[in-house]
Amino acid sequence: MPVDWRRSGPDLTITLDRTGAPLAVQIQEHLRVAIREGRLAAGERLPSTRRLADHLGVSRGTVVEVYEQLVAEGYVDSAVGSGTRVAELLGGDARRDSQRPVAPPAMSTARFDFEYGIPDLRSVPLRDWAWAVGEATRTMPTAGLGDEDPAGSRHLREVITAYHRRVRAGCANTDDAIVVSGFRQGLAFVLATLGRMGIDAVGLEDPGPREHDRIAGRAGLTAVPVPVDAEGLDVPALRRTPARAVLVTPAHQCPTGVALSPARRRALVAWADEVDGVILEDDYDAEFRYDRQPVGSLQGLAPDRVIALGSVSKTLAPAIRIGWILTPHRFVDALTEEKHLSSRGAPGLDQEALALLIESGRFDRHLRRMRDLYRTRRDVLTREVTAVFGPDSLHGLAAGCHAVLALPTDVSEDAVVEAARTLEVRISGLGRYRLTRKPADPALLLSFSNLTEQQLVLGVHAIAEAVRRCRRPPEGPTLPRRSGTPPTAP
Amino acid sequence: MPVDWRRSGPDLTITLDRTGAPLAVQIQEHLRVAIREGRLAAGERLPSTRRLADHLGVSRGTVVEVYEQLVAEGYVDSAVGSGTRVAELLGGDARRDSQRPVAPPAMSTARFDFEYGIPDLRSVPLRDWAWAVGEATRTMPTAGLGDEDPAGSRHLREVITAYHRRVRAGCANTDDAIVVSGFRQGLAFVLATLGRMGIDAVGLEDPGPREHDRIAGRAGLTAVPVPVDAEGLDVPALRRTPARAVLVTPAHQCPTGVALSPARRRALVAWADEVDGVILEDDYDAEFRYDRQPVGSLQGLAPDRVIALGSVSKTLAPAIRIGWILTPHRFVDALTEEKHLSSRGAPGLDQEALALLIESGRFDRHLRRMRDLYRTRRDVLTREVTAVFGPDSLHGLAAGCHAVLALPTDVSEDAVVEAARTLEVRISGLGRYRLTRKPADPALLLSFSNLTEQQLVLGVHAIAEAVRRCRRPPEGPTLPRRSGTPPTAP
Repeated sequence: MPVDWRRSGPDLTITLDRTGAPLAVQIQEHLRVAIREGRLAAGERLPSTRRLADHLGVSRGTVVEVYEQLVAEGYVDSAVGSGTRVAELLGGDARRDSQRPVAPPAMSTARFDFEYGIPDLRSVPLRDWAWAVGEATRTMPTAGLGDEDPAGSRHLREVITAYHRRVRAGCANTDDAIVVSGFRQGLAFVLATLGRMGIDAVGLEDPGPREHDRIAGRAGLTAVPVPVDAEGLDVPALRRTPARAVLVTPAHQCPTGVALSPARRRALVAWADEVDGVILEDDYDAEFRYDRQPVGSLQGLAPDRVIALGSVSKTLAPAIRIGWILTPHRFVDALTEEKHLSSRGAPGLDQEALALLIESGRFDRHLRRMRDLYRTRRDVLTREVTAVFGPDSLHGLAAGCHAVLALPTDVSEDAVVEAARTLEVRISGLGRYRLTRKPADPALLLSFSNLTEQQLVLGVHAIAEAVRRCRRPPEGPTLPRRSGTPPTAP
Repeated sequence: MPVDWRRSGPDLTITLDRTGAPLAVQIQEHLRVAIREGRLAAGERLPSTRRLADHLGVSRGTVVEVYEQLVAEGYVDSAVGSGTRVAELLGGDARRDSQRPVAPPAMSTARFDFEYGIPDLRSVPLRDWAWAVGEATRTMPTAGLGDEDPAGSRHLREVITAYHRRVRAGCANTDDAIVVSGFRQGLAFVLATLGRMGIDAVGLEDPGPREHDRIAGRAGLTAVPVPVDAEGLDVPALRRTPARAVLVTPAHQCPTGVALSPARRRALVAWADEVDGVILEDDYDAEFRYDRQPVGSLQGLAPDRVIALGSVSKTLAPAIRIGWILTPHRFVDALTEEKHLSSRGAPGLDQEALALLIESGRFDRHLRRMRDLYRTRRDVLTREVTAVFGPDSLHGLAAGCHAVLALPTDVSEDAVVEAARTLEVRISGLGRYRLTRKPADPALLLSFSNLTEQQLVLGVHAIAEAVRRCRRPPEGPTLPRRSGTPPTAP
């Protein structure tokens, strides 16, 4: 029932739904919106309670309640003798925001998504996870539902350190493990903590994982690029920097895919001992090694010098956001305080669920399944790339879920990436992983974990087509191209 | 089968379990542990592969594999002509940490826990949550399992803003909502962002929520105490500070329990307009108002000046760690970047589960149930405190889950808290919530949400006993005491 009090006061129409929310609530909301949108201007007098009640066909008590509520919230003013008026107060123009058009969410629409860092999302063990959360809700002690130990669930820390010992040859204690909500949060905490302890520069692999320089900058540390070669991080180069901390991906360097060589592992630990430094180990996809057992974690080798960071983003899914820090004992208190004052961390129920998932054997079973799946995909990728780009064009495939494709030296990475985009391929050049702008041969990073075999085959051919489009027409042989002659009968 | 190669090399016994893990894995782990613990010292020569294979009764290939793995991991060195030797490298004394005794987890063992901030943990809707996670695993689009929109799940942001409009009279847009992993993380992000934008001081209620001064300090802001009186934050006092941001608990001030008066709400918004400032609204327990409809959020009143922070820690459980920031549009990009570089935020599956929980009506049903439960507990607390401490000793009870108990002025808060502790009561004095050390009447903060009715009754009497023990014997009447005369027959 619309009511128009145009002639008796401000221009306002209130429509009530007699079958909906309580009438007082509906009236309040109409008035709030009218005030926010300026239809009721500051200083304007509202009708008397009796008058509005008559108009709307509601009891006077209802309108009294409405006005009282709006007074309490500061929307209107009520003074003896001057009636009820719209208050003078709105911060800025409330309408500006509420009428802004809604932007669509950013989402990849590429058919062939070689972008780095996403596991096979079709294989996320969702039923196992739902099972684990259900178990956690049934078995978790009531006290565990409250504000947990700032370091995280003790149960999960026990399970994680045991897992790390078993699978990654680590040797961290439960008390030296801190649960976080993913690798990135762990890194931010570690860098902030080292910064407070007087470490003002951190060495980063160049090329290396993206955005770590910005994360270091936020934590107040200077990011110092350290070159990577065929043996991994160039430790002699690190030695020449002022950094007393370094972030490395020893099991499978991101993005080049090389493993840190035994000599370099030793040299790195020796460096840390000499400068009283800290090695941050990003163990991001070490679980996936296909030809041999994974190389053990640096943490197990030098537990007093290494802070190991891990998460389940690559093994389960980014949407299950749990990670950990395994640290030498001297950093535990400062890291726990950093976490406590920044965020209470990962949800307690999820922590318990992950502990149960690992203890039940479901996590290992999933890893074995994924290792087989990824091995097959890697083999398909290798076969196709070799067929199309020739042998020795793919590097860094011993482990993990990505490899590097060397491009013909006469094309530009950026041009190929852009040409690939028009062919529905999402991919990045190695340049996006470089901290310095030294000249380097063009190359692409191919992440193969979230592509089916068919997508891999078609995707590689689409990339070849992109390369072809970027080569200058007159030069060289038309390398990556299938035979132009029609297929002969077998 | 134990093997002792004492006479042929280092002192080491390896016991293999033929029914257990692969033999190579077992041998490796034995050697790693021996090296870490110093039983195999740097430079020591390992037996030849043939010799060790014979000793252990395994194939030589197995031992070759073991040695290769340990070389790859940097534990041992293998040089032509000098055999395989333990590498020289261990960072510090690895044993120091691994033999440290394990500390028990910190856990409250009080029978009567009046400590602030925990909802009724026995009433957490665990079945509903498990249902919601199960639904999320079944219905969530595959792409949602990857790295989400940095602002958080769009679905949840839609649901949260609709909820905030409906229940808290807010008016934020989906695009201006950012999902975080709880209030504390949201606050840390907001303060860091304001700091980067040149706001260097934030007003905090005094008394006010604990640790917010430390969180502000970490973000690089100066915390400026602003007094609280019977109308809430003293806005004229705020005006005299250099702060251009202020953090308030307008619906139910923490800890005093007063609601920000209508005049103060308006004055606060006017202040923000004048100084081009920002009001941070901590809406922590506004859902629980018993005698009347909750006062609408400040965000709805002044959407261009207010950043609203909320979470489900008090409505569901701290172990379901999801919160949100509702912000004027001008801060969205900077806040999203802050989140993106600090942590990827709350788990995507949990975000979807919360959206489904709210959409299904289960969240509202739970809130109604909790409101009834807390109202009953509040009534029991009021009745007992009035009976034992007299009328007008309890304040701040119109909403929320805590109240303030005024103590006799001749006792010390700290002494009562300590005496209560010996009576198995966990409680804090108001002093713990003060930022400044001005003289103030002694008082206790009583949080009643996580205590049964029986615990409330017994707990109040235990507190009365603690007060009695702290009063100087000769002075005044023995106020809080039950009649000492034997009960008379009815």
